[in-house]
Amino acid sequence: MSDPIDGSACLRGDAALARAFAFLGKRWNAVLLGTLSTGPAGFRELARQVPGISDSMLSDRLSALAASGLISRRVDEGPPLSVSYALTERGRALMPALEQISTWAVEHLPES
Amino acid sequence: MSDPIDGSACLRGDAALARAFAFLGKRWNAVLLGTLSTGPAGFRELARQVPGISDSMLSDRLSALAASGLISRRVDEGPPLSVSYALTERGRALMPALEQISTWAVEHLPES
Repeated sequence: MSDPIDGSACLRGDAALARAFAFLGKRWNAVLLGTLSTGPAGFRELARQVPGISDSMLSDRLSALAASGLISRRVDEGPPLSVSYALTERGRALMPALEQISTWAVEHLPES
Repeated sequence: MSDPIDGSACLRGDAALARAFAFLGKRWNAVLLGTLSTGPAGFRELARQVPGISDSMLSDRLSALAASGLISRRVDEGPPLSVSYALTERGRALMPALEQISTWAVEHLPES
């Protein structure tokens, strides 16, 4: 019954969607990106802003996000030594979509 | 270092984002919604359009999406009996965000 005008574009989009959600669907990834959308933050600051995440999980997720080029890790030798994380251009490009999803969830996906 | 103008709005948004991704991040959910964005489809049609999904998984996901009010299930008594699935208004409201994520993934999340 479906009648896509351009089947190949749809398939391409679906594959991309699957790829995006395989990544963003991993617990904490989207929330961490959303948190960094307000500006760069250090490890402890992120741990505070994302309630429920363990230090080892936070460390794991920050590494994965950095490996994907969505965030950057900046070391300031200090003293005191400090490390901060920030969205890259690629990560920032995702923010409008995340905001839309967040707005949608507030309106249409009630807390159960 | 972050300086949110309205902390409570941010937290609300983050909780909503976590809720959205807990749901959309479940394998197949976003792809099934994207597939239905081209129009209503029957079970076999969906199974064909989403390569790699098993019948039992498809059945499971369609039930969950219907339970969340994102899709509707319509039975046409026929004969022949046929069942089709379609986005509800709530599901349709998510499409612009999914399209944005898909576009972002095509541009910024290369196939690895």
